This record gives sequence, structure tokens and C-alpha cells, in this order.
Amino acid sequence: MSLEELIAFHEISQVKYRYLRGVDSQDWELVESCFSASASSWYDSGKLATTGAKEIAGLLKRYMFNSMYTSHIALQPEIKLTSPTTATGIWRMQDIVHFTAKEPTSLVPDLDGSEQLVGAGYYHDEYLKEPGGWKISKTGYVRLFEALARPNVLYVHVTPERGRKPA
Amino acid sequence: MSLEELIAFHEISQVKYRYLRGVDSQDWELVESCFSASASSWYDSGKLATTGAKEIAGLLKRYMFNSMYTSHIALQPEIKLTSPTTATGIWRMQDIVHFTAKEPTSLVPDLDGSEQLVGAGYYHDEYLKEPGGWKISKTGYVRLFEALARPNVLYVHVTPERGRKPA
Amino acid sequence: MSLEELIAFHEISQVKYRYLRGVDSQDWELVESCFSASASSWYDSGKLATTGAKEIAGLLKRYMFNSMYTSHIALQPEIKLTSPTTATGIWRMQDIVHFTAKEPTSLVPDLDGSEQLVGAGYYHDEYLKEPGGWKISKTGYVRLFEALARPNVLYVHVTPERGRKPA
Repeated sequence: MSLEELIAFHEISQVKYRYLRGVDSQDWELVESCFSASASSWYDSGKLATTGAKEIAGLLKRYMFNSMYTSHIALQPEIKLTSPTTATGIWRMQDIVHFTAKEPTSLVPDLDGSEQLVGAGYYHDEYLKEPGGWKISKTGYVRLFEALARPNVLYVHVTPERGRKPA
Repeated sequence: MSLEELIAFHEISQVKYRYLRGVDSQDWELVESCFSASASSWYDSGKLATTGAKEIAGLLKRYMFNSMYTSHIALQPEIKLTSPTTATGIWRMQDIVHFTAKEPTSLVPDLDGSEQLVGAGYYHDEYLKEPGGWKISKTGYVRLFEALARPNVLYVHVTPERGRKPA
Repeated sequence: MSLEELIAFHEISQVKYRYLRGVDSQDWELVESCFSASASSWYDSGKLATTGAKEIAGLLKRYMFNSMYTSHIALQPEIKLTSPTTATGIWRMQDIVHFTAKEPTSLVPDLDGSEQLVGAGYYHDEYLKEPGGWKISKTGYVRLFEALARPNVLYVHVTPERGRKPA
């Protein structure tokens, strides 16, 4: 192993972290900037598939309503360089979603706005090093499980800043 | 990127991990040792703000009762060196708290001791390299959400060791 | 700190991640391959103790039924080299378990198959560098808490692939 490999792993991790921050803060420009132009997605074993950085950001925006407050985490990266400019990566993921409104076009049917989803799985990604740095060129995940519940919630406080630091 | 930067990122992460271990194991001396003497906190968008390493540890101790069993995780660090001895860091956080007793002075009102809190957000930290190593010089977080529930719990087993290895 | 140390931390982390992927995907050969031949376990403060790579994988297989869908995460590693070929590591862990069937021989009594377990704690590991790379030579954890609940679940979808990428 070399310093160059450690740096590549670090830089690939950084773009993954920015991507996830974009998703949970619903910053779709940040999400788009993390993908190579011709990137493709196959989220949820291929149920949410599209091609193109702009299209992936658009797909996520369409299904992640403003009424949804989400926490997506990724960790335990197993990244392998397949050439000086390409890599693959497996990551554990977990997601928590609070639904706070009815959303008739949601992928989850019959929401009444009090539900909470907790899921887990593995991302299987590909990465491409461009002149501007490493980008995600392919992303998708296969779940371990996904559970939807209406727990006995006393309150769900959400913050419109969605984790952003105040100016 | 250089080896020196990778080492700085590693060392900054180590102090963050020690800090979090201090919080969940309620080892307030360990917590205090992670901060520079004049560090400041602005937890929960500034609701829990104070200045001074000793004062931050004291603030946490005041609100994290012995009857609370907590799990705070931080991951996905986006650390930037702003000089050879200063840095900023954004981290995803998630916290789970089990309340096991009424606590009239709790920040959460009307606790009956059966509640569970699950939250998520982003830390926005600053770090300072001192002769003794990197310290946290400023810490705070903005939540994505915070949910309090009384789920249908069959049991909550807690361990007085709070994760510490037996001697 | 040296490049060699950073590489060792990276390689030790990689074996931990493969181990956890083996556990959640119930790939017991992968689990076994992560341990040195004479490794020992003392899971759950010693309640699940055995010696030998094959025996540890067998122990986990015995109690992690096919009807259980699990998510084990480990993060915040505090790894220390104790010699060029030995190391210790503390990791935060969290686990989510969905039980989907009665299992009379389960460690959790009186399961009806609708339960969910959420726990947290710290792993205290030891590692050994062999000719084939770093292996786990000792592993165990002490919990912060473990909660069993029957939340008001609308559905639990599980995937038989358990996170594996489709061929």
C-alpha cells in the first residue's frame, strides 16, 4: 500500500460524505456535483434507476419531499482501486426517515404523516477520477431490511436548517 | 494532499472519538481533556452554550443524568486545515437516549422514565493544535430532527460499566 | 506518526469491516477468515465466549438464525499498535436486530417474531499481523444498553440477498 492509495481512499470518502450531506440537507446542487456527468444509479436493488448526474439529483428530489426529514449514514468503506482513475466501494448504510405529511405520490403507500422508516443495507459504488477530482460514477444499494412503523411518538421536532450551520 | 494532512485528519478524529467515548461512558475528565482551555460549545443550535473546557464538561454533566443511557455517534468527517495548527470539521451525528427515571430538571419536560429519544444532525467543529496535540476548540450541532417516543418496550437493559472494558 | 502506522490502521479497519459484513450477510466463511486461528471471543461482556476462528464463526451461526435480520455497525476506532505485528482497538458499536419468527433456542426469551432489538456498546479488540495480513485475535464488547421492543410496525421488508450485490 502507498500514500497515493490512502489519499485516493480519503478523497473518494470525501465525495461520498458530501453526497450524503446533500441528500439529508436536500441540497440537490451539492448532490449533482458529486457525480460524473454520465453517472448511473440503481437505488433499492434497481427500483430507482436513472442515468446522468442531473437526472440522479432530480430523481432523489422527486421522491424526497420537503415533508420528509432523513438521516442517511454510510460507513465501513471497502474501497478498491481498479486503475489510477477508477475504483469500487462497498459501504454499510443505515437510513432513518420521518414522514411528517401525507404525500400521495410517495413510494410508501398510504402514508398518514406519522410514520418512521428505519432501514439498512450495503451500497455498491463505482468512482471515477476526473480533472476536478473523484466523482461517483455508479451508485446503488441492496437492503438488509426496511421497516416502517408508527411508534408511539410524543414529538418529532424538525429543523428547517436541516443540519446547516447558521450564517 | 500530503502525509502531514492525513495524519492531522487522523489525530483530529481521534480526539473526537475520545470525546464521544467520554460522553457516553460519562467520564467527564476524559471529556474535559479533549477541549482546549478556552474552548466554547453551542450544542443544539446554541441552546447549550458555554466557554471553557471545564465548563463544557460541567454543562454536559449537569444535563446527562446518571439515569440516562446514551449512544452518540459521529461519522463522515469533512475536515479542513485552515492553518498548520487550526482546522474545521463537519460530522454527521446521531444520538439515541434511553431515559430510565423521572428527572425534574431535564431539558425534556414531563419525563416518566420510559422515553427514548432518537436524533440526527451535523456537528460544525473547530480544532486547535496545542503542544499536547489537537484539541476541540469549538463544538456545536444543528439538528435534522429529534424524536421522543414511548415505544412498546419489553425491556431496556443497561450496563453500569457503560461500555468500559472490565479490568 | 508514520505512513506505516496509517496503513496498519487502514488494514485493521478493513478486516473489521469484512467481519461485520460477514455477520450481517450471514457469510460464516467470510467471518471465519477474519480471525487468527487461535482467536478468542467474549461477546456481550463474556456471555458468548469461545476460542478458535472456526468456533467463533460457529458460535455466531448458532445464535444468528436465518429468521434474524441484523445491522451491526462499528465506528470511531481508537487503534493502538502495541508492536509491529500486534494492536488493540476500541470501537463504538450499534446493532439493530429484527426477529421475524419464533426461535425457541434464542438467547432472547419468549420471542413471538415481531420484536426489534436496538443496542449500543464498545468493542475492545486485539489484532495480530500474520503473513496473510491483519486478523482479529480477540474480540468482545461491553454494552451501554440493549432494548427490546414490539413497536407498532406496519411492515418489515427483508431481502434474502442480505445486502449482497446481484451477480
